[in-house]
Amino acid sequence: FSLWCFLSLIQFADQKQEFNKRPTKISRRSLSRSISQSSTDSYSSAASYTDSSDDETSPRDKQQKNSKGNADFCIKNIKQADFGRREIEIAEQEMPALMALRKRAQGEKPLAGAKIVGCTHITAQTAVLMETLSALGAQCRWAACNIYSTQNEVAAALAEGGFSVFAWKGESEDDFWWCIDRCVNVEGWQPNMILDDGGDLTHWIYKKYPNMFKKIKGIVEESVTGVHRLYQLSKAGKLCVPAMNVNDSVTKQKFDNLYCCRESILDGLKRTTDVMFGGKQVVVCGYGEVGKGCCAALKAMGSIVYVTEIDPICALQACMDGFRLVKLNEVIRQVDIVITCTGNKNVVVREYMDRMKNGCIVCNMGHSNTEIDVASLRTPELTWERVRSQVDHVIWPDGKRIVLLAEGRLLNLSCSTVPTFVLSITATTQALALIELYNAPEGRYKQDVYLLPKKMDEYVASLHLPTFDAHLTELSDEQAKYLGLNKNGPFKPNYYRSAAA
Amino acid sequence: FSLWCFLSLIQFADQKQEFNKRPTKISRRSLSRSISQSSTDSYSSAASYTDSSDDETSPRDKQQKNSKGNADFCIKNIKQADFGRREIEIAEQEMPALMALRKRAQGEKPLAGAKIVGCTHITAQTAVLMETLSALGAQCRWAACNIYSTQNEVAAALAEGGFSVFAWKGESEDDFWWCIDRCVNVEGWQPNMILDDGGDLTHWIYKKYPNMFKKIKGIVEESVTGVHRLYQLSKAGKLCVPAMNVNDSVTKQKFDNLYCCRESILDGLKRTTDVMFGGKQVVVCGYGEVGKGCCAALKAMGSIVYVTEIDPICALQACMDGFRLVKLNEVIRQVDIVITCTGNKNVVVREYMDRMKNGCIVCNMGHSNTEIDVASLRTPELTWERVRSQVDHVIWPDGKRIVLLAEGRLLNLSCSTVPTFVLSITATTQALALIELYNAPEGRYKQDVYLLPKKMDEYVASLHLPTFDAHLTELSDEQAKYLGLNKNGPFKPNYYRSAAA
Amino acid sequence: FSLWCFLSLIQFADQKQEFNKRPTKISRRSLSRSISQSSTDSYSSAASYTDSSDDETSPRDKQQKNSKGNADFCIKNIKQADFGRREIEIAEQEMPALMALRKRAQGEKPLAGAKIVGCTHITAQTAVLMETLSALGAQCRWAACNIYSTQNEVAAALAEGGFSVFAWKGESEDDFWWCIDRCVNVEGWQPNMILDDGGDLTHWIYKKYPNMFKKIKGIVEESVTGVHRLYQLSKAGKLCVPAMNVNDSVTKQKFDNLYCCRESILDGLKRTTDVMFGGKQVVVCGYGEVGKGCCAALKAMGSIVYVTEIDPICALQACMDGFRLVKLNEVIRQVDIVITCTGNKNVVVREYMDRMKNGCIVCNMGHSNTEIDVASLRTPELTWERVRSQVDHVIWPDGKRIVLLAEGRLLNLSCSTVPTFVLSITATTQALALIELYNAPEGRYKQDVYLLPKKMDEYVASLHLPTFDAHLTELSDEQAKYLGLNKNGPFKPNYYRSAAA
Amino acid sequence: FSLWCFLSLIQFADQKQEFNKRPTKISRRSLSRSISQSSTDSYSSAASYTDSSDDETSPRDKQQKNSKGNADFCIKNIKQADFGRREIEIAEQEMPALMALRKRAQGEKPLAGAKIVGCTHITAQTAVLMETLSALGAQCRWAACNIYSTQNEVAAALAEGGFSVFAWKGESEDDFWWCIDRCVNVEGWQPNMILDDGGDLTHWIYKKYPNMFKKIKGIVEESVTGVHRLYQLSKAGKLCVPAMNVNDSVTKQKFDNLYCCRESILDGLKRTTDVMFGGKQVVVCGYGEVGKGCCAALKAMGSIVYVTEIDPICALQACMDGFRLVKLNEVIRQVDIVITCTGNKNVVVREYMDRMKNGCIVCNMGHSNTEIDVASLRTPELTWERVRSQVDHVIWPDGKRIVLLAEGRLLNLSCSTVPTFVLSITATTQALALIELYNAPEGRYKQDVYLLPKKMDEYVASLHLPTFDAHLTELSDEQAKYLGLNKNGPFKPNYYRSAAA
Repeated sequence: FSLWCFLSLIQFADQKQEFNKRPTKISRRSLSRSISQSSTDSYSSAASYTDSSDDETSPRDKQQKNSKGNADFCIKNIKQADFGRREIEIAEQEMPALMALRKRAQGEKPLAGAKIVGCTHITAQTAVLMETLSALGAQCRWAACNIYSTQNEVAAALAEGGFSVFAWKGESEDDFWWCIDRCVNVEGWQPNMILDDGGDLTHWIYKKYPNMFKKIKGIVEESVTGVHRLYQLSKAGKLCVPAMNVNDSVTKQKFDNLYCCRESILDGLKRTTDVMFGGKQVVVCGYGEVGKGCCAALKAMGSIVYVTEIDPICALQACMDGFRLVKLNEVIRQVDIVITCTGNKNVVVREYMDRMKNGCIVCNMGHSNTEIDVASLRTPELTWERVRSQVDHVIWPDGKRIVLLAEGRLLNLSCSTVPTFVLSITATTQALALIELYNAPEGRYKQDVYLLPKKMDEYVASLHLPTFDAHLTELSDEQAKYLGLNKNGPFKPNYYRSAAA
Repeated sequence: FSLWCFLSLIQFADQKQEFNKRPTKISRRSLSRSISQSSTDSYSSAASYTDSSDDETSPRDKQQKNSKGNADFCIKNIKQADFGRREIEIAEQEMPALMALRKRAQGEKPLAGAKIVGCTHITAQTAVLMETLSALGAQCRWAACNIYSTQNEVAAALAEGGFSVFAWKGESEDDFWWCIDRCVNVEGWQPNMILDDGGDLTHWIYKKYPNMFKKIKGIVEESVTGVHRLYQLSKAGKLCVPAMNVNDSVTKQKFDNLYCCRESILDGLKRTTDVMFGGKQVVVCGYGEVGKGCCAALKAMGSIVYVTEIDPICALQACMDGFRLVKLNEVIRQVDIVITCTGNKNVVVREYMDRMKNGCIVCNMGHSNTEIDVASLRTPELTWERVRSQVDHVIWPDGKRIVLLAEGRLLNLSCSTVPTFVLSITATTQALALIELYNAPEGRYKQDVYLLPKKMDEYVASLHLPTFDAHLTELSDEQAKYLGLNKNGPFKPNYYRSAAA
Repeated sequence: FSLWCFLSLIQFADQKQEFNKRPTKISRRSLSRSISQSSTDSYSSAASYTDSSDDETSPRDKQQKNSKGNADFCIKNIKQADFGRREIEIAEQEMPALMALRKRAQGEKPLAGAKIVGCTHITAQTAVLMETLSALGAQCRWAACNIYSTQNEVAAALAEGGFSVFAWKGESEDDFWWCIDRCVNVEGWQPNMILDDGGDLTHWIYKKYPNMFKKIKGIVEESVTGVHRLYQLSKAGKLCVPAMNVNDSVTKQKFDNLYCCRESILDGLKRTTDVMFGGKQVVVCGYGEVGKGCCAALKAMGSIVYVTEIDPICALQACMDGFRLVKLNEVIRQVDIVITCTGNKNVVVREYMDRMKNGCIVCNMGHSNTEIDVASLRTPELTWERVRSQVDHVIWPDGKRIVLLAEGRLLNLSCSTVPTFVLSITATTQALALIELYNAPEGRYKQDVYLLPKKMDEYVASLHLPTFDAHLTELSDEQAKYLGLNKNGPFKPNYYRSAAA
Repeated sequence: FSLWCFLSLIQFADQKQEFNKRPTKISRRSLSRSISQSSTDSYSSAASYTDSSDDETSPRDKQQKNSKGNADFCIKNIKQADFGRREIEIAEQEMPALMALRKRAQGEKPLAGAKIVGCTHITAQTAVLMETLSALGAQCRWAACNIYSTQNEVAAALAEGGFSVFAWKGESEDDFWWCIDRCVNVEGWQPNMILDDGGDLTHWIYKKYPNMFKKIKGIVEESVTGVHRLYQLSKAGKLCVPAMNVNDSVTKQKFDNLYCCRESILDGLKRTTDVMFGGKQVVVCGYGEVGKGCCAALKAMGSIVYVTEIDPICALQACMDGFRLVKLNEVIRQVDIVITCTGNKNVVVREYMDRMKNGCIVCNMGHSNTEIDVASLRTPELTWERVRSQVDHVIWPDGKRIVLLAEGRLLNLSCSTVPTFVLSITATTQALALIELYNAPEGRYKQDVYLLPKKMDEYVASLHLPTFDAHLTELSDEQAKYLGLNKNGPFKPNYYRSAAA
């Protein structure tokens, strides 16, 4: 741990306010974000069977012990472990890549000696990841990156299985930081790897235990917000270990955005409104990967889709894909559904909502909850009526209603579920990034933010092909030579990226 | 009421058992069916806010009165009327055709003098229909055609509005017939029109009050089962009033099957299993309208779809639409999802389920609950595990699980919702059929089963076009003459039908 | 041949003018029609290698003999026989159903004793049909139904093979009737079956050799126009033999219209204009099967498609399929391509063409050449410029050009080709219809126009399934009983029809 | 012109053989390539009306003069100028971006003083580009980059318009280099910009007139091959002026590959074989942009499509898009059509062709003519039969035929046409690259190969939006600040690239 690094952290602490501010430029959406904004977002988990009616004692005040007498955890209720175990087993079936990694790990343990501290959503899928890391040789301590998203029964199963988990559904903000602290501030154990989702864990260590970075080999960060924070640190010369940005790997991006949203836009709209898509006029704001997914799905269901864009290249793509490119004001009076996918702010403002027709559905699939100016609807002349969970009717004085979903937060997180397969992509990417950073020869990675090497990105993809009974073709020696490629990849240059976000 | 008709009923009563037997040939699916089989099917209503925890007193034992002192109804709880009214108002917004009929009825009352007894699902959409019939001049008395499907709050709103409604959610079979009886067996009021869904009401009158048919101008029947019963009666020479089969109108068929199922297959699968469609291998049994809808939707979501068919014409269509036509045993080991849409029985039998792969999802979108041989799974060596509402894991001794949805009942009724717009098509068709039969000049309709006249079918469609801001082109006089058509339709011959079921 | 029949023909002759008038109501399009209108339509045959530059002597003036000395034919040039034979062999590979029929015929000859006189397009595909009929036991004499469509080399191969063929490319109208006459007016041979396409052959026999009908067992007619004439005859009580309308069989309809046009609209537009479809705004007039095919194809290529309709049921389907339903005048200024598929007349009139934008492409996929009012463009102020075969620029005084394809005739016949597979469906239908009529027990068919029995329609489809390696599922005895069906079909009622035309 | 640069060229000349060798690694396909390989490829030009039967005198031996007495050109026939002018005018209508550039150039002349020597296909679209460059202030001299692709009438129109054009259809290789030399080796005129397509012009100057580079401000190169040569030069330290790689701009890539091939695969197959796509089984080798376009189009037409891939990321995309990922040998026996889009060599080898079924169509949409091992079919036991232009039947001893298109060369160049709109994208990109290089401040570009700046790429796209009546949304100041973007772009980082090739 260099002096420079130490000094930089002092400055860093001074600049904490800036650190917590909204990112000023974020070009991609994420499924997660930091406490400052979204660690408190509600996050629906379809598979959560947690009974909210159980006892009110704070987990922090309970004596807890698993069946083997281990007490190094803090969760809601250890008795839910069996139920959580089944959830984990079900998730395992849709996370073939991690299971394959476990199998390969029977011979060698690439994470032997790794002490990983993690801060992510705690769900059945995360449990599969943690148990895989463990099978690969790592020790893990874990906290939740969101105060609402923990599946208590899964946390119980993990605790029962011997993991030091500190998380429950409905933490206070104080609980949140307490849990993180319990993960890192422990006698006789010091992490050498960080797996973060939102940057709060990294931030806490920077702030409280900067010396810990001496032993840390690297950070793996999964969220837009967290990655942004890391780039800020790097730019400011304050990043003192290598960091891997797994958010921007090609495979993960495609699944988080195009493939996931193609399905979740339909799911989210149906679950909340039971709307029929056929014949509906829809405007989709933004034709990045998320917008492309939404447009393709709705077109396939018989909707008439209009697109708005600011980038002429994406705009031209929308044209070639058969969507009329309009300005929002040209169609706002006639559309039945408005969907934002821009990553921008104030895309749908009050002026537009004033002109929408009765019954118009308004929702957000984009990066953050700023795309629809929901605040502008909180005025005395408008009446809000909650008609279902996540569905509000906002009623104008003349009786016109618009149907606002999830109060402008992300529809696919609030009103739909993220398929396990998508989470499998993410978790596998995280696991490989940890392995890469942990095993990289000295000097390969500097104190900077890196993208997952192309070859590992390809490896994530290849581990998921068996799910589809998909058979990859191998290059012959002659072909590999002709193309100037190694037979095992990488098959594309590092700069190769997925399509427009 | 002819002697012949009376006599026929005697025979009819003798053949009751046969009457209650499963139809021996049914070529189209329906959203409803009779008590003998499906009046007891569970029917999910997403908009139902009925609190199942309220008091246990049977509605039949309660004193009930609406705010105007009227007591001629029997429902769960009149206090829910306000809530039900809002549900009705929301439904009105998506039933533009009925609202348009109401408006046109301000001048003339085509149902003036009509006394309609109805037996249908009692939902917000039915309420819009009933209030439209009333606005057109009719008096109505109503019972439920299914013991589970009544929205209690809507029944309350109807009772508060002065309708004689006899229905609640969770009727016993005895309640079911009691409610129907209360609709028809009333001092000083005798129905002259029947609106039935499943044939139970018609059956009851035939059995108990055959004399009532003297005054009845016609029956409008909406279900496959009910229509089948009517054709049986007609064939046996026992139908003593004209009946209109509204189930088979072109517009209704397209919406009930193709358009509705195209959306509900995705919705039903997502809500129950959160499965990701992309890359999944799916086999769809049957390529009628329902199968076509399912295939189109899944293909659009990136699934690889196989089709089985018995009819070479439908089979060839599947080929031309890009689906591999297979026998079930050719793909049963490899598919991730099996969907039945045949109207047939024992399409997916135990032998196939024994060979499915671990995690395979099995569900039914077809006519009845016979397509999957669920009974064959109720054997000692298999374990059933209910993992969510409507989702069972059936577990083989070797640990293999298949995921059975809705216990083989209709997925789209059990695990999805029928969009109001689809119900609007049905309700409008029913209203026009009632008007047609009630106003038809003597002799136009004999004691037979009729399809809705082409022109009225077209009228149903035209009343729904404004929803889409769709503008119909009118024929010029010259063009009409050239085509040999009336400018106002019908535009197709009566025999013209929708595509393969 | 009854007296009544004879008398009726006298009246018939008097009404000849009416007979030759345009049909007043035609609800479906066809690939062929009568001399009065379309026997003179140009018909592109991609596979035609006929050298138009060869000798100018009329075939009628030539001495012709095949290698076996047979001279009972009249064609362009017997020397082209080898070339024609190869064309036929290639066609055989894509007409598996006829080849399968030939194989089955090795045991029995269902057409033994049949003497068939035919009048159809004479192409390689027709040759496969004729040789199949011959293999099934029939004797054939054949003329062309269109003065341009004969493939001379195929006619040569047929003549060389012993068929009495009377046809060449570029017949005069006098030649046309002379050829037909040579087919029927022959010493010692009298037809007992008629295979017609357009009704000209039937008309000729009615007019010239009414006595011939005494021995004729039936007429098989393939075209809209011909079928219309037969219905007129039947209505007037003048049809004196059974006739089979093969134009309206379900399988044929689907292929002629939906499946064929889905491909040929793209092909026809590309070959003539090289237009890029992506992003283009297109209006399709008419949403019958042809319109549905055009819309689906263009939507898939990234065009933005608008639809016009007069029938509210088809209109509603367009909405549900995701097309904006407009009146032509709403979009005429903005569209890049206008396609007519209505079967109507004067759908695109001068007023609309005056308002089209520069470069707008106008073409017709509908029934006849009346849909675009091409005559209205033949005015002095407009300049016509032929830029390619089948492509005219019509230039307004201000320099605006519209691109008119095939002078408003059928684009898919003029500028594209009909795939052999589609022709195979038609030819197989014709063959089965001939077999059915020839073998039907006395009395099954009266002097009326019949549709091909459902079961034979299904048989046509089933004969084509092996092409796609498609495997049909067979009903079990139990299932057949449950459905009330014969295990071998028919699987749908006779009234069952394909979707909207 | 530095001494270093001069010296490097000496070495360069020595390495000429290497220079002419096939590129060893090419990851993207192009529409053009060098004389060594593809300057001699046949290139179909649908709009070419050149009469191949006219006089046989070499243009080099003719006295030629345009109507103004100018003789500084060498073409086929100056009399065809009027006809060529009309072709150019028609092309202008589909090249709105260049026309817009001309308009903007009325005020300023960004190419004033530019002396551009060009070597490209000489077509109507190139003429629009040349006349635009001229309108922007440049002087141009031009040769053809392919010995077959020149539209003689267009060359005539250019010569008549005063351009020094040296090109005709059917040049010998000696003619080819002579024409290039005439462009550069001219008294009193020295080029300061190069626009090349394939690198032959650049190569010629390097070889013959290295001193010329002293005055040259930059090279704009359009082809894969030419770009590859430039990168080789750069790597070897021998590139002595800045070069702009316009082949890899995002907009151009999308159009050349995804959008263009989506349409041309259908067009190319139809024009050559009239195959019906519905129900056909197709295997597409390679799921880059070209493969994606082919797969999407064929799927939309009802084909059943299989995909082979070597790259797991592209493979996973194929799965998610609904295509079965196979190895070629798994499906080779059953498919009806095989399409290569890999950029690789020997993808379809004799062993596979031996196992194809009768009638299987084989074609190549990929980078070069190496993907299908056509040489392996030139063996004595196989018979080749040319059935149409670009269509060969290769016949096995047992009679099996495969249908080989364009002898394995690029189907879309040989058997289809490239839409003017796609060429407009390319030409606009070229024009902007010339402007950028010509006007760049000293030092912005070094002696290296550059991609077109993101902002100019976006500008190319924006110039094409009006064609689609597409309306771009502008960022508000507040939004631009939020996103950290300039309101006028660039909207994406420079590293942002289009999807997989």
